[in-house]
Amino acid sequence: MFQFDFKKRVRYAETDKMGYLYYGHYAKLYEIGRVETMRSLGIAYKDLEDKEKIMLPVLSLQSRYLAPAYYDEELTIRSILEELPYKMIHFKHEIFNEKMELINTGEVKLFFINMETGKRISIPDNLKTKFNTAF
Amino acid sequence: MFQFDFKKRVRYAETDKMGYLYYGHYAKLYEIGRVETMRSLGIAYKDLEDKEKIMLPVLSLQSRYLAPAYYDEELTIRSILEELPYKMIHFKHEIFNEKMELINTGEVKLFFINMETGKRISIPDNLKTKFNTAF
Amino acid sequence: MFQFDFKKRVRYAETDKMGYLYYGHYAKLYEIGRVETMRSLGIAYKDLEDKEKIMLPVLSLQSRYLAPAYYDEELTIRSILEELPYKMIHFKHEIFNEKMELINTGEVKLFFINMETGKRISIPDNLKTKFNTAF
Amino acid sequence: MFQFDFKKRVRYAETDKMGYLYYGHYAKLYEIGRVETMRSLGIAYKDLEDKEKIMLPVLSLQSRYLAPAYYDEELTIRSILEELPYKMIHFKHEIFNEKMELINTGEVKLFFINMETGKRISIPDNLKTKFNTAF
Repeated sequence: MFQFDFKKRVRYAETDKMGYLYYGHYAKLYEIGRVETMRSLGIAYKDLEDKEKIMLPVLSLQSRYLAPAYYDEELTIRSILEELPYKMIHFKHEIFNEKMELINTGEVKLFFINMETGKRISIPDNLKTKFNTAF
Repeated sequence: MFQFDFKKRVRYAETDKMGYLYYGHYAKLYEIGRVETMRSLGIAYKDLEDKEKIMLPVLSLQSRYLAPAYYDEELTIRSILEELPYKMIHFKHEIFNEKMELINTGEVKLFFINMETGKRISIPDNLKTKFNTAF
Repeated sequence: MFQFDFKKRVRYAETDKMGYLYYGHYAKLYEIGRVETMRSLGIAYKDLEDKEKIMLPVLSLQSRYLAPAYYDEELTIRSILEELPYKMIHFKHEIFNEKMELINTGEVKLFFINMETGKRISIPDNLKTKFNTAF
Repeated sequence: MFQFDFKKRVRYAETDKMGYLYYGHYAKLYEIGRVETMRSLGIAYKDLEDKEKIMLPVLSLQSRYLAPAYYDEELTIRSILEELPYKMIHFKHEIFNEKMELINTGEVKLFFINMETGKRISIPDNLKTKFNTAF
């Protein structure tokens, strides 16, 4: 198992009329979480697309909303990999507010596409190696 | 069972670098779908908050991404209620592209909060009556 | 002069904690306004990019906020072309609320880029012809 | 004069089909810039609303787009106050890419509203004092 924490503040742009972080913005938190988790393992998602011509579209998303996040709170996005990615990457996320109360859980599954063929592939070896070091 | 279709075009603002509708924007499609479904039943969500002091926060969200949506496509958001709301509202959604291919499915569960007490409640009677007419 | 009106409802996703349409979302209203104005003239912006390999990046944006827009209001986006586009397109916009009160004015200047050369160009002839019909 | 720099990375959610940071998202960068500038002066915008019942709606926005911002770039948002706020706050912003090239300039004017009366006011004394220390 590997986990990584990253902080992100709730901006005015992201609040809604209830005064909460809009429910649709959690997907962006998960995006930030997984990209920063990969960066911590030496994987720049940008290079994956630009240099290795691999992209990772999202297959599925699940979210449970336990409590609201409020304007200006500095949230902690915890990203958890329970198993080594192979045919897909399965990220679990836990979002904590400033008091470190768990306010949201999420799961995102992504798969690998070779951008030149448009075909689905398994995890490339060099990526596998980098994930391996974390486990 | 009750279902309602509503159309929404993909805007530049909503695309991402892959050229797809960003995966986080589907939650907004579901929002549009459920609000317009309720409007078709004579329920203005705005009045629910402003006049009846009831709000409907989201409890959970699930999404499956079957195919991308592209810039300028006019999507069809299908919203499905399989059972009468009681302790919560459970919306199912199907998103179709212009060729009416199913590209995404979603489920959103919402609950009722009395804004004055901050407490969770069951569906108010007048709302129930309006949903009843649809079934 | 040519002008075109298009309607757009304020969604929950677009409100902020003040209960207003967030000030940053007006740029999206202008986008919708100009794209639908062009569509009314027989110009699909999507085809411009995909088929003619021309894109229109934004050069400048100006906005004046006269009154707030609220959740669920159906706004009217008025797009005004005072002169024929040549080296750039200069759109003026007026946003009206449901009572047709003017709540926002905007100006957006865009220029033409040949996507294959990456160079700035003047308006292509076939586009010019379509704009001409409107004046 | 007072200026303050704050860094913000371009996220996938914020890119568009051109591969650029969408032009409408710069308003959010300015929001982040002004809020973090105020925080650096000991002013929490959240407390302004929650405790002092003062809000700062935006009066006008101007933006010039000099060059695109790309996915994953860590931008520098420079916020500049050339004069002490009095009837309004006038923020100037300069956005730099990772090579510290100037890619965008912006200006945002905000005014003060007493949330209890709904009336426009001049800058409150305690705020004035905090801005004063910076000049």
